[in-house]
Amino acid sequence: MSSALLPASAVHPPHEPALLSQYRHVRAATEAMVADLTDADATVQSMDDASPAKWHLAHTTWFFEEFVLTARIPDYEPVDPQYRYLFNSYYESVGARHPRPRRGLLSRPSLDEILAYREAVDETMLGLLTTAQTDAEAALIELGLNHEQQHQELLLTDILHLFAQNPLKPAFAPELLAPVIADPRPAPEWIRFAGGVVAIGHDGDGFAFDCEGPRHNVLLQPYQLCSHPVTNHQWFEFIEDGAYRTAGLWLSDGWRWVCEHGIEAPLYWEEREGTWWQMSLRGMQPVDPDSPVTHISFYEADAFARWAERRLPTEAEWEHAVRNLPATGNFVEGRVLRPLPDRQNTAGVLRQMFGDVWEWTASPFQPYPGFRPGAGAVGEYNGKFMCSQMVLRGGSCVTPESHIRASYRNFFYPHQRWQFTGLRLADDA
Amino acid sequence: MSSALLPASAVHPPHEPALLSQYRHVRAATEAMVADLTDADATVQSMDDASPAKWHLAHTTWFFEEFVLTARIPDYEPVDPQYRYLFNSYYESVGARHPRPRRGLLSRPSLDEILAYREAVDETMLGLLTTAQTDAEAALIELGLNHEQQHQELLLTDILHLFAQNPLKPAFAPELLAPVIADPRPAPEWIRFAGGVVAIGHDGDGFAFDCEGPRHNVLLQPYQLCSHPVTNHQWFEFIEDGAYRTAGLWLSDGWRWVCEHGIEAPLYWEEREGTWWQMSLRGMQPVDPDSPVTHISFYEADAFARWAERRLPTEAEWEHAVRNLPATGNFVEGRVLRPLPDRQNTAGVLRQMFGDVWEWTASPFQPYPGFRPGAGAVGEYNGKFMCSQMVLRGGSCVTPESHIRASYRNFFYPHQRWQFTGLRLADDA
Amino acid sequence: MSSALLPASAVHPPHEPALLSQYRHVRAATEAMVADLTDADATVQSMDDASPAKWHLAHTTWFFEEFVLTARIPDYEPVDPQYRYLFNSYYESVGARHPRPRRGLLSRPSLDEILAYREAVDETMLGLLTTAQTDAEAALIELGLNHEQQHQELLLTDILHLFAQNPLKPAFAPELLAPVIADPRPAPEWIRFAGGVVAIGHDGDGFAFDCEGPRHNVLLQPYQLCSHPVTNHQWFEFIEDGAYRTAGLWLSDGWRWVCEHGIEAPLYWEEREGTWWQMSLRGMQPVDPDSPVTHISFYEADAFARWAERRLPTEAEWEHAVRNLPATGNFVEGRVLRPLPDRQNTAGVLRQMFGDVWEWTASPFQPYPGFRPGAGAVGEYNGKFMCSQMVLRGGSCVTPESHIRASYRNFFYPHQRWQFTGLRLADDA
Amino acid sequence: MSSALLPASAVHPPHEPALLSQYRHVRAATEAMVADLTDADATVQSMDDASPAKWHLAHTTWFFEEFVLTARIPDYEPVDPQYRYLFNSYYESVGARHPRPRRGLLSRPSLDEILAYREAVDETMLGLLTTAQTDAEAALIELGLNHEQQHQELLLTDILHLFAQNPLKPAFAPELLAPVIADPRPAPEWIRFAGGVVAIGHDGDGFAFDCEGPRHNVLLQPYQLCSHPVTNHQWFEFIEDGAYRTAGLWLSDGWRWVCEHGIEAPLYWEEREGTWWQMSLRGMQPVDPDSPVTHISFYEADAFARWAERRLPTEAEWEHAVRNLPATGNFVEGRVLRPLPDRQNTAGVLRQMFGDVWEWTASPFQPYPGFRPGAGAVGEYNGKFMCSQMVLRGGSCVTPESHIRASYRNFFYPHQRWQFTGLRLADDA
Repeated sequence: MSSALLPASAVHPPHEPALLSQYRHVRAATEAMVADLTDADATVQSMDDASPAKWHLAHTTWFFEEFVLTARIPDYEPVDPQYRYLFNSYYESVGARHPRPRRGLLSRPSLDEILAYREAVDETMLGLLTTAQTDAEAALIELGLNHEQQHQELLLTDILHLFAQNPLKPAFAPELLAPVIADPRPAPEWIRFAGGVVAIGHDGDGFAFDCEGPRHNVLLQPYQLCSHPVTNHQWFEFIEDGAYRTAGLWLSDGWRWVCEHGIEAPLYWEEREGTWWQMSLRGMQPVDPDSPVTHISFYEADAFARWAERRLPTEAEWEHAVRNLPATGNFVEGRVLRPLPDRQNTAGVLRQMFGDVWEWTASPFQPYPGFRPGAGAVGEYNGKFMCSQMVLRGGSCVTPESHIRASYRNFFYPHQRWQFTGLRLADDA
Repeated sequence: MSSALLPASAVHPPHEPALLSQYRHVRAATEAMVADLTDADATVQSMDDASPAKWHLAHTTWFFEEFVLTARIPDYEPVDPQYRYLFNSYYESVGARHPRPRRGLLSRPSLDEILAYREAVDETMLGLLTTAQTDAEAALIELGLNHEQQHQELLLTDILHLFAQNPLKPAFAPELLAPVIADPRPAPEWIRFAGGVVAIGHDGDGFAFDCEGPRHNVLLQPYQLCSHPVTNHQWFEFIEDGAYRTAGLWLSDGWRWVCEHGIEAPLYWEEREGTWWQMSLRGMQPVDPDSPVTHISFYEADAFARWAERRLPTEAEWEHAVRNLPATGNFVEGRVLRPLPDRQNTAGVLRQMFGDVWEWTASPFQPYPGFRPGAGAVGEYNGKFMCSQMVLRGGSCVTPESHIRASYRNFFYPHQRWQFTGLRLADDA
Repeated sequence: MSSALLPASAVHPPHEPALLSQYRHVRAATEAMVADLTDADATVQSMDDASPAKWHLAHTTWFFEEFVLTARIPDYEPVDPQYRYLFNSYYESVGARHPRPRRGLLSRPSLDEILAYREAVDETMLGLLTTAQTDAEAALIELGLNHEQQHQELLLTDILHLFAQNPLKPAFAPELLAPVIADPRPAPEWIRFAGGVVAIGHDGDGFAFDCEGPRHNVLLQPYQLCSHPVTNHQWFEFIEDGAYRTAGLWLSDGWRWVCEHGIEAPLYWEEREGTWWQMSLRGMQPVDPDSPVTHISFYEADAFARWAERRLPTEAEWEHAVRNLPATGNFVEGRVLRPLPDRQNTAGVLRQMFGDVWEWTASPFQPYPGFRPGAGAVGEYNGKFMCSQMVLRGGSCVTPESHIRASYRNFFYPHQRWQFTGLRLADDA
Repeated sequence: MSSALLPASAVHPPHEPALLSQYRHVRAATEAMVADLTDADATVQSMDDASPAKWHLAHTTWFFEEFVLTARIPDYEPVDPQYRYLFNSYYESVGARHPRPRRGLLSRPSLDEILAYREAVDETMLGLLTTAQTDAEAALIELGLNHEQQHQELLLTDILHLFAQNPLKPAFAPELLAPVIADPRPAPEWIRFAGGVVAIGHDGDGFAFDCEGPRHNVLLQPYQLCSHPVTNHQWFEFIEDGAYRTAGLWLSDGWRWVCEHGIEAPLYWEEREGTWWQMSLRGMQPVDPDSPVTHISFYEADAFARWAERRLPTEAEWEHAVRNLPATGNFVEGRVLRPLPDRQNTAGVLRQMFGDVWEWTASPFQPYPGFRPGAGAVGEYNGKFMCSQMVLRGGSCVTPESHIRASYRNFFYPHQRWQFTGLRLADDA
């Protein structure tokens, strides 16, 4: 990724409305990401779970065209009527759509045509953003921008997956973009929480996705949380102890998954003459022992916790902890990809809670009490996925900064691991 | 099923130890179930999820041989050393086992040989049961008997599945064995609960599976529960309203399941000239509008609740309700299969909570706070399945009576529906 | 298989019509085969390619009911109207049928009911056979009997496949039923044929299937044929030379098949402490080095020939050879299963051409010039299979004696090997 | 495809060696084909049977590098050592290779890098071609050029398949490139041949693939061949007569294929408001009734012949006919893609035998008598595919002109139809 990724300024010009400025910023950040991708890189779909970069670019644009422009502008003429079919993701109420596993067959439209599509929609959007919006409109646009930021992260993890399939192991970006080292020698400590009836969920300040609320009380037993995420060094021990061959450490589904796929290490790990290497956005790199382990499935996270004679935290435990203690992480100004400079080295601090790796929790993704999805197509945003997926918390090294917050609920199926996924241990107190 | 299913007496003779008496009773009940099955009926496996009746007969026996006799009797000679391999279900710590999808290839040993195997093990077990047991031994034997009762229910649902595949639609038993009509015209009412911090989980009185504890507090919001399970009549309306073709009513996973499998009605339903028929243990029967709907997946239960603009109860809501109000159902003396005679007809009563259909809840099957699986192989009993399955509560028309209790947690994957599964609506209060 | 397999007499009583006598004989032979099978043995389907014994018993009966009785007798009342659906194999023109992969789900009707079905149809058939038949009727009945004999062979190979899946490795028959040893030390010699324009195909004397004609001329180049089929001893050498790991010996399709299925030896072979054992109708037996190799696919036969720097014969070469030289084999009086006593030991004799193993040829199963399938449903008998299958010649140790003839064309897909299949080498002269 | 496809001159300059000239010409023709493809177009693999254009460009180059340069030049330094792995197709003796179904995951190397790879190899090859070659070397180079021409045809059919998957239905070339109309109203006549012992196979004049020989005699019965291939108009009648729903017209394998894939028309056909359209290299076009039908499987060709109460010709009949009568077709000077201007309109002429559509024959692809594959890796060229595939004769509208000859044997599996495949009827005389 070139330095062009950094927009000249993330600060909106004097008098420019905040939403307009945010719109410019988010859209530019997405385009900066693909600056070094070829048309071919942006076209191929490396597995059903992943999407081509081109598709991410177009789908996030379709979102604005479908939900904002078509709704707002009478007789709106779509940039290309076929894009409505091609770039709908999963909105059943919008209509038929190109099947997900066939997204990689679209060598046309080209990357340039998609960028022109973005430009055309941006022009209309920017015009609209200089006028007044109703609250509902503004909310939809804000949702669209947060949606686009989620796709920014997916775009990067999908490109990593694609490049990892290539025997040439190309590097996406020569620097950065990996969970960084917290401390040269992390010395984890256990931090205790008294539990009780505590409130979790979005508290109403700033943007949040619908699934982050309603804010509500839960009853927690006393518990403790580890100050650091699990590191690659700890994972070496897990492997060396034969954990991937010990049925008793695994959930039944997990053990079947290990056996059927011959799992022996985190995704992208490869042993070369006794040393572990890992495919990354920087290409093949030796696995750094002090970094948080990443690209593990929920099954692996759960087995590790059992092996360590601990457990995973629930999402309520995680959120309560981070709301009540100082926490560090890689959230940064300006953009996502730089490590936090001012690491504190004090005891009693939760380290690397944000912006390193998504942390698997023990919690299935379920509606909070009183949850009601929104009306219309955007009601499909989160609610319909509340089954068989597990919640992750915290945010990874490729998560946009503004998505780093205590109430954020990410979710994936237990076997998926192409995201930057890791874990932090918890235990009863 | 012949009347031989009814053991001459379920009451243990004077002076016979209770456990010995219980052993006789449970083992005889299993054998009574297969009295009218042919060797072929007992051999075929109709899908990977199901097991042959012969396998249920043998595996429940293997449980006693493996966990009780081999452990207790020095130099115990197994009845047949190959059975250790053939009839292990999923106990990784016991060793290799015959693969589950190949259970139906075992035309040998015959049903008679399996019954002889049971007799041989029973003889040794009965001898052992006349002597004193340690508490741990007694607990293991009690676990084995409860285990066998779970397989009694599976045996019946697996036979139903097998017979349903046969175009001849054979009847297993000419009478009984279906969720019975609660009231000729059920008039459901909504019953409110105040919520608050309430205790759920097994309270220590009598047998329970490990996953039913530890008893612990949870915080409930005020809620309401319907007095009756959803009936077939209500399901007709759901179908007629086009719900199986309305994407917006379904979870994303559920909609994919509906489309891939062409789901249009509950399992075993068949439309013949405008009337719905249903394969049952009594053969093909017209669907009775006043009976609880059954053989539905979690996806269908969830979609129904959304269509009805309600929701499913959590397992804690369900358990709290049943602990605090009079409840009726089909639990009976002597054996499982007779309806409760003394139905009350008062308001404020939860009807058909037990012994009609298993009720899908909104709760994923997760460990209760502080749950630790037992040591050794029996620790694999429940804990390793705590992922991607949903809890069902209440018990069905083929559930053994002694498994009917407030804390019982049954669990299946969201798409499974060959058990007697139904639902009851809940809502916020 | 009990000695009941041997009907008291294969000679028809004085004055009994030959076809009636043949009917009695063939039908009794089929039933004798299942005398030692349990209901369960006769019910299970061990793979899609195989059928349950019960199904073979019923389908061969259905053939007479459908094609003879229904056609001949006005208002014929079928024994059970549902059997028309259950026991049709592949006759599209007869109508819908129970799907092949679901044949093993029919625990009902029981083996006894199927035997009663046979008895009922036999009674009507025997009545009909005492009256005069038109030539067309007689031809259909003769076809039905030859059809049943083909199923006799399939019944035995399907049972072998089923028993081979069972870890208990049950024996079907304590004696016989394997390709026997020709000579304690077979000394194969090469026999030369001049080729030229030669006639092949059925010459009109006695019964033949439609695909055995029309008789026609083909032009053969000079060639030679080995006097003996390839033995297990030769196959040991093939294995020891690493042939199963040498891509260059295999057809492209064959190599893919080897890799995908991890093929390392003929079907049913198992290495135990350095010795090869083979599942057989007599149970597990050491592999006899002097017997013809069997249970190999066309891919393996072809690879062996390439390894031996020879080739497989075409079916025309095979047939021309056997029509022009003395040939020996296991065809016997009275029934199929005894070895030919009077083996000749002279040079220039083709040994074990008949009744040991089916010999894969180099010829795809294609219509002979001028071939026209019969009218009506029986026209589906062979013609529609003339694609992607290879011809085998000679007959195996479980082939009924009357199917042993020079023009007989058996056919299977190149990967199939659950029949008694072997090979004989050929070469250009 | 741009007009750049036409090299300035196909005639080699004075004094330039013929092979060198041929090399320039063939290589330039391949590159001209991709002139209008984007990097993305050239990267995507639309099904396992197809390969990306980039892969065709690289693999044909790898052929020269692997079999000519590495063999000839001591210490030859490959352009990129990883290409040996990436661009081997199926040569087991050369070593491991990138799995075929993953060819479409290689967004890198880019199209430009592949073109540079071609240039680098060409430079060395052209140097080598100005020096003297041994006969063996010259033969290998000629094989490489014919190999590349085969890939030219595959490249076009693979691009057509890719573009057909795209809802935008892009056109590859605005003109040409379809089987052209023979006559506005073709009036097919039947042409009789006496048969007898005739010679077929390559007669030694000019290049041929190994499988085209040895030339040998075959015995043909009297037969007749239709003067024209089957047209789209005839196919309309086949469809309208319900042939795709009539089991009795199909081979057993073919009927299963029809049912499993819901086949209702040739590949790429689509009905829009009562009119048939067809995706082509020119984009979506109405189906022209007078053109030969194309993109049909062997199963469809065979079913059509049965429906027409005729049959397909054997490859020997086809070759004998074309060697003994005037034949027309689209072979042209200069390049492949222009129709033959001087169509004759005389009776007794076999029309459109060459260069319109590949014609399915009734012949499985088998070795001719005496066939021996070459030594070394190139021996894998054809021989190992001689199983389960059917021979096609004649050449299509995208077949390079120099591949148009009487002895040429193309071959595909019976279900494949993404090539330009059609049929011509034959019958017994």
